[in-house]
Amino acid sequence: MQPIRLGMVGGGNDAFIGAVHRIAARLDAHFDLVAGALSSTPEKSLASGAALGLDPARCYGNFSEMAEREAARPDGIEAVSVVTPNHVHAAAACAFLARGIHVICDKPLTSTMEDAQKLAAAVAEADALFVLTHNYTGYPMIRQARAMVADGALGPIRVVQAEYPQDWLSTPLEKEGLKQAEWRTDPARSGAGGSVGDIGTHAHNLACFVTGLEVEALAADLQSFGPGRVLDDNAHVMLRFAGGARGMLWSSQVAPGNENALRLRVYGEKGGLEWAQEDPNYLWFTPLGEPKRLVTRNGSGAGAAAAAVSRIPPGHPEGYLEGFANLYAGAAGAIRRKQAGEPPVEDDALLPGIDAGMAGMRFISACVRSSQDNAAWVSL
Amino acid sequence: MQPIRLGMVGGGNDAFIGAVHRIAARLDAHFDLVAGALSSTPEKSLASGAALGLDPARCYGNFSEMAEREAARPDGIEAVSVVTPNHVHAAAACAFLARGIHVICDKPLTSTMEDAQKLAAAVAEADALFVLTHNYTGYPMIRQARAMVADGALGPIRVVQAEYPQDWLSTPLEKEGLKQAEWRTDPARSGAGGSVGDIGTHAHNLACFVTGLEVEALAADLQSFGPGRVLDDNAHVMLRFAGGARGMLWSSQVAPGNENALRLRVYGEKGGLEWAQEDPNYLWFTPLGEPKRLVTRNGSGAGAAAAAVSRIPPGHPEGYLEGFANLYAGAAGAIRRKQAGEPPVEDDALLPGIDAGMAGMRFISACVRSSQDNAAWVSL
Amino acid sequence: MQPIRLGMVGGGNDAFIGAVHRIAARLDAHFDLVAGALSSTPEKSLASGAALGLDPARCYGNFSEMAEREAARPDGIEAVSVVTPNHVHAAAACAFLARGIHVICDKPLTSTMEDAQKLAAAVAEADALFVLTHNYTGYPMIRQARAMVADGALGPIRVVQAEYPQDWLSTPLEKEGLKQAEWRTDPARSGAGGSVGDIGTHAHNLACFVTGLEVEALAADLQSFGPGRVLDDNAHVMLRFAGGARGMLWSSQVAPGNENALRLRVYGEKGGLEWAQEDPNYLWFTPLGEPKRLVTRNGSGAGAAAAAVSRIPPGHPEGYLEGFANLYAGAAGAIRRKQAGEPPVEDDALLPGIDAGMAGMRFISACVRSSQDNAAWVSL
Amino acid sequence: MQPIRLGMVGGGNDAFIGAVHRIAARLDAHFDLVAGALSSTPEKSLASGAALGLDPARCYGNFSEMAEREAARPDGIEAVSVVTPNHVHAAAACAFLARGIHVICDKPLTSTMEDAQKLAAAVAEADALFVLTHNYTGYPMIRQARAMVADGALGPIRVVQAEYPQDWLSTPLEKEGLKQAEWRTDPARSGAGGSVGDIGTHAHNLACFVTGLEVEALAADLQSFGPGRVLDDNAHVMLRFAGGARGMLWSSQVAPGNENALRLRVYGEKGGLEWAQEDPNYLWFTPLGEPKRLVTRNGSGAGAAAAAVSRIPPGHPEGYLEGFANLYAGAAGAIRRKQAGEPPVEDDALLPGIDAGMAGMRFISACVRSSQDNAAWVSL
Repeated sequence: MQPIRLGMVGGGNDAFIGAVHRIAARLDAHFDLVAGALSSTPEKSLASGAALGLDPARCYGNFSEMAEREAARPDGIEAVSVVTPNHVHAAAACAFLARGIHVICDKPLTSTMEDAQKLAAAVAEADALFVLTHNYTGYPMIRQARAMVADGALGPIRVVQAEYPQDWLSTPLEKEGLKQAEWRTDPARSGAGGSVGDIGTHAHNLACFVTGLEVEALAADLQSFGPGRVLDDNAHVMLRFAGGARGMLWSSQVAPGNENALRLRVYGEKGGLEWAQEDPNYLWFTPLGEPKRLVTRNGSGAGAAAAAVSRIPPGHPEGYLEGFANLYAGAAGAIRRKQAGEPPVEDDALLPGIDAGMAGMRFISACVRSSQDNAAWVSL
Repeated sequence: MQPIRLGMVGGGNDAFIGAVHRIAARLDAHFDLVAGALSSTPEKSLASGAALGLDPARCYGNFSEMAEREAARPDGIEAVSVVTPNHVHAAAACAFLARGIHVICDKPLTSTMEDAQKLAAAVAEADALFVLTHNYTGYPMIRQARAMVADGALGPIRVVQAEYPQDWLSTPLEKEGLKQAEWRTDPARSGAGGSVGDIGTHAHNLACFVTGLEVEALAADLQSFGPGRVLDDNAHVMLRFAGGARGMLWSSQVAPGNENALRLRVYGEKGGLEWAQEDPNYLWFTPLGEPKRLVTRNGSGAGAAAAAVSRIPPGHPEGYLEGFANLYAGAAGAIRRKQAGEPPVEDDALLPGIDAGMAGMRFISACVRSSQDNAAWVSL
Repeated sequence: MQPIRLGMVGGGNDAFIGAVHRIAARLDAHFDLVAGALSSTPEKSLASGAALGLDPARCYGNFSEMAEREAARPDGIEAVSVVTPNHVHAAAACAFLARGIHVICDKPLTSTMEDAQKLAAAVAEADALFVLTHNYTGYPMIRQARAMVADGALGPIRVVQAEYPQDWLSTPLEKEGLKQAEWRTDPARSGAGGSVGDIGTHAHNLACFVTGLEVEALAADLQSFGPGRVLDDNAHVMLRFAGGARGMLWSSQVAPGNENALRLRVYGEKGGLEWAQEDPNYLWFTPLGEPKRLVTRNGSGAGAAAAAVSRIPPGHPEGYLEGFANLYAGAAGAIRRKQAGEPPVEDDALLPGIDAGMAGMRFISACVRSSQDNAAWVSL
Repeated sequence: MQPIRLGMVGGGNDAFIGAVHRIAARLDAHFDLVAGALSSTPEKSLASGAALGLDPARCYGNFSEMAEREAARPDGIEAVSVVTPNHVHAAAACAFLARGIHVICDKPLTSTMEDAQKLAAAVAEADALFVLTHNYTGYPMIRQARAMVADGALGPIRVVQAEYPQDWLSTPLEKEGLKQAEWRTDPARSGAGGSVGDIGTHAHNLACFVTGLEVEALAADLQSFGPGRVLDDNAHVMLRFAGGARGMLWSSQVAPGNENALRLRVYGEKGGLEWAQEDPNYLWFTPLGEPKRLVTRNGSGAGAAAAAVSRIPPGHPEGYLEGFANLYAGAAGAIRRKQAGEPPVEDDALLPGIDAGMAGMRFISACVRSSQDNAAWVSL
């Protein structure tokens, strides 16, 4: 099976997330990176491309040029990864979608709701796929959890607890020249949400993905503890889901001792589930009135949903990159089906797309508006 | 040292908490149970007293009789434990306080704010001590945590996460004849709070005890998932502390897989602390920029505050009863100092009393009012 | 029910284990301490007794005097706790057994095999009970584990892994005046085993208690890492059980980071069990081909064997003192049945006695002999 | 940087470990798989190659043909992965080494000591590198552990506890047609060691890798619990290291509930380390007299040795495949230096090679001989 020809926008030398996308694209041999507009200047883009072994002729100074010229090549890219800061997502994605090039885009969708709506329109019109890398949905035990909820193992859901604490912004790194900290605390590049946009959206997305429920309304209390920080670095949110379930969501970048402590707990009438991103190969299942069970990836009691996105036997841990790669693998399958004129399969629905992206944008927006209104309830 | 003569109101044969108080009173040999009004009828009281080896002449049919007659005996009780359902606390406590008999009372303080105020007035007038068994404050590692916060090990506090989930009311046990479930879900006996009153107050109390902060305002979303249940069995609360810290509090009795999963996490500018009641001999300390440290009860790095309430070396776990007994031991010390005419010592301030009780009542009341007002902020 | 009148030999002011025995005896109100030969000199014994509120007339200078005089009193002690260093156990126990006073004795049984045999003979002849405080057998989840093995939940046992590492002798504390370290590293007072005698016997006892199997032969490699230390402070042992199961046992006092990390793992044809003393309220049960289950004390899936020795609901941890108290409670029941002329009940067989003590002595002796013979197999 | 052209011997469709090697080779884009003798028949080899997108002309029926023809191509493979059952390792590796093609070989080295010696001679003569995939040495926290021991953070090592339990052979799968089980329990294909060869060698290798110590002598008690099984499926080993440290090693394939529970604990005079393969991003460091510290991959307190083999920030777990890929990345570096005529760098010494392979063979052989001699000590 030939790999899909892939381009990348953003992800130059220093960027953490670009390297992640490249490994994820390569891990299962589904994609071959052949072109890039990797940095904001032609020189840097060329240098980053050289380091990656790209043909210099396919290292572009900006995404527009790349879209135009790649679309014109017979061996042009079939798909592109957009891994820039948030404010560039929409324009870049649109440029490729308009040319029928499939887009795999980092989250959150965009930095403004206006951009998001433009992008949504572009996706609707395009003859190309749009995949949003809400990567945590790619973890096998998250797939397992979703399947268990869908199968009724928990009964009707009552309570959802989602949290994503970090500690890396406990001190004002954005004033000390750390590039990651600069753009992520800058409303112009990140959007209206700080921690809620960067990581709260992951917690929100995961809660919805696993439960199959949508947030109907929320009340949010956002805080900025970092001195002079404009965007929130800590957010407390109460959730009301359609159908009656209730939830809480906490995102923080100022909680010392937390690295990427994304954690989801879901409780229904008949049982509960608990999962932690930092130990992703385990899923606690707590059927009411029975001992807690620790289900392991591919282990006894784990099912087809997890196995479909696992590579190795239980007891040998798969991690973040593998979960990320599961989205790329899913995208590759969908792209190939589309290229072959085949209909989508059921699992294609597991790929986060524009709907998940818009849900995330509404979540961020609602959090900001609620908080500005002293945590009043805001409908999504 | 002679044990203090103790009486008990409530705590008859079937009651879980009465047995706990008796073990806690006895564990360090500070108290000797000699009298009781253990049940609501004289016959049951006598039977329960007989099972405990009490002199039948000191098994009373009600607390009023007990207060009167014990006060008249030269060898009458010096202190009394009040372990009835909440709605009896105030009247019982007042009866003994009025006679100069020290009161050790279960929480929450009372079932109504009116009763709470009467009791507070009685405490203010009485020449006797009033101790409220917010027992989780007796755990050594909670003392350690409080001392660390007070010593500045965390810097100014920013974020507090407190939770107390259980699962025992996931099904409507109150309709199946379980006495514990009946009174705890009955507003007449429990008060206005369901899970917030029964266990949310513990989480609230612990958060304040460890941080030394007071909740200034809260927004609460209370739910009753149990069919036909009047009181909340799940509560989501956002907290604003005096001084600017923010928090979340979750109490639940419908979260399958949770037994008594009280957990506290506190984050300051310089570090964090994490503690879980079900593994109480451990305290995670996470100084910013250093590896996480696991401090054990009486182990390396644990200090005087924990050692003062520990009985055995590290690695041999102490549990719930020992923590409970630490309140009794603290009460015994305070009582003896008072009897000897000695001034209180600094550690006497660690004993929860009427102030903690009133704070709990305000917390319950605020949660209920906020929730009735669609989770609007309510000042405490 | 009247408490049983109890005396104590050893356990003066500084001794850790004496205080433990006193709390354990008192916790369930089964015993009342009324006499003692608490220290090796009359003065110290009197001072220690005074601190405990004992009648000075019943604070004796040595155990012989105590045995004689208490036996002569109409209100004399009915039982005695022997909590001295090991080399005194035999003589003290014999003095009381000979007078029909029940003996609760700390482990290991004695410091020499010769003494052990004398004691065994005395127990055989005596009209009194002899209970050895292999206290870890009192933990509810150990009782649960034993019941599960007996019920066949694991199938025939294949492999047993037992270990008890500590770190407190990593440095030569015995040369720095620490009394505990002095006698425990002194062959004259401890016997031929260092770590194997002090804690290896616990691991051995627990392995046998849970599996119901006996060690048939062992090969041991004992080491003394502490400079100038005569007795072993680290021991590696391979075990062959009657019936074909195999095992390993590790005891150490020089493993930094380990407090009292006693741990037992048992594997049969159909499943496994894992238990750790420092988190004693949990038992992992791993049925082959199913997810691991975490059984909690008194929680869902825990059975009658654990409930029989539990005091409080699941999720509220019980610890070391409660486990210890379970042996005292068991002893109290057996003593009362004997006093009442009633036959023993089935659970009396759970109390470690002279047989467990002799098995421990044979274990120590075999370890020492095997190690002297370069870890050759030695039959027990 | 151009990827290195890679061939593969073994690793056809069903083989677990072949897929692992391919992902590991690809993950960091250091290798490009271009040829294979993937199965034992030309047809299967061709089919497996087709599934991987290999040029049919480079899918060979056996390794001899592949070595000969690839060596003759100007674009022939530069390196080969040997991932067959053990008895094929030596002949295959020799065929490529003789032609100057670098070999990356699965462990254990060979199935017989005779083969091992031939291979060692071939390596000594060859102008090509030989890397043995003792893959667990590639985990970042194992590198961290090794560096800490080397830096003296633990002081002189006293005690080593290594174990690798699994449960997959608890039932006689080899009689039920499972190919993996068949060859791994067959002496003709696996060699003299069962669990000791398959996984015990990993535990042994890791213990030596981290401590820098060599096993001087061992005493082993091997068992075969599976009915009719010839090779050991459970092994208990006592270790004596050069320099005086002592250890225990346990390997098992019949311990229900254990998937790949490789675990290493190392204790020195000044501190200890604990690591578990199933949670590989954590390393416990226990300096004597201080609280335990949990060091995370790339987190606070982790050092250069771990960072050198990490791809992503702390809190995002890397797993088994990433660790495996670290050996491939290390091999790629060494191969490129050799191709460029550059001298080896210090980190090349971290790559397990023929010495580690011979040490493993001696370990297996010593275990088998010791066990045959009733667990007598055998020098390595």
